[in-house]
Amino acid sequence: MSTKHRGAGVPALHPQLQADCHVLGDWPSGRLLLHRNATLHWFLLVPYTQHLDLLDLDTPLRERLFSDATRLHHYLKDTLAYPRVNVGALGLVVPQLHLHVIGRREDDPCWPAPVWGRLADGPVYGQDALEVLKVDLGIEDS
Amino acid sequence: MSTKHRGAGVPALHPQLQADCHVLGDWPSGRLLLHRNATLHWFLLVPYTQHLDLLDLDTPLRERLFSDATRLHHYLKDTLAYPRVNVGALGLVVPQLHLHVIGRREDDPCWPAPVWGRLADGPVYGQDALEVLKVDLGIEDS
Repeated sequence: MSTKHRGAGVPALHPQLQADCHVLGDWPSGRLLLHRNATLHWFLLVPYTQHLDLLDLDTPLRERLFSDATRLHHYLKDTLAYPRVNVGALGLVVPQLHLHVIGRREDDPCWPAPVWGRLADGPVYGQDALEVLKVDLGIEDS
Repeated sequence: MSTKHRGAGVPALHPQLQADCHVLGDWPSGRLLLHRNATLHWFLLVPYTQHLDLLDLDTPLRERLFSDATRLHHYLKDTLAYPRVNVGALGLVVPQLHLHVIGRREDDPCWPAPVWGRLADGPVYGQDALEVLKVDLGIEDS
């Protein structure tokens, strides 16, 4: 995985995020993760910061984060055909700032409720599917 | 209430938001609402747009929205002493874009879970409390 975007003092990924997610790669704002539950495409951006709350970010990092989130949003809508996208920064269970960017459709098992804490175990991604996502999202393997 | 920020063609507030919330006033990005449940301070910003998803906003409106959200964030943390703030745009139940900015503390009844769909009925705001909030947030009555 490229480390070109990481600055000094970047915190390690929280063990719970490592357990719940695939690490797809590094993006300008932070690490790009994908929730292991493949029921729907659920991305997480973990910005390179020690802050816990989204709106404590300085403006340049917040802008990079929303640029990255918007790229995911368009990928979810335009390539994966999700009609709607949920965005949220909660972070009370896992104390490391992460922005959720989640594709939603009317036939998903949680619709119209939020997915957090409500999504039952589902299918998992195969290695091929993960590779397709990485290529689509411009992530180079190391 | 001032209408100075409203452009032509601004959609009417969705009836469910009207039912659930106090309308505090107009801010640069949109209408500022406060959830009627006073268990915790739960603000909603309803930007002046027809888009349903946060990341479909054009950059200038998104910037105004996050400037307004950041002002609420600092009010929640610095004045109301909430240690944490949740931010999210879901909008699958109410099809009008609204950004939640919610004060969270460890002794709130939902902690650490999200509040959506989980917050039991609670106290309501008195008129005096609403007036204090409006003054603190720089909202002029009409």
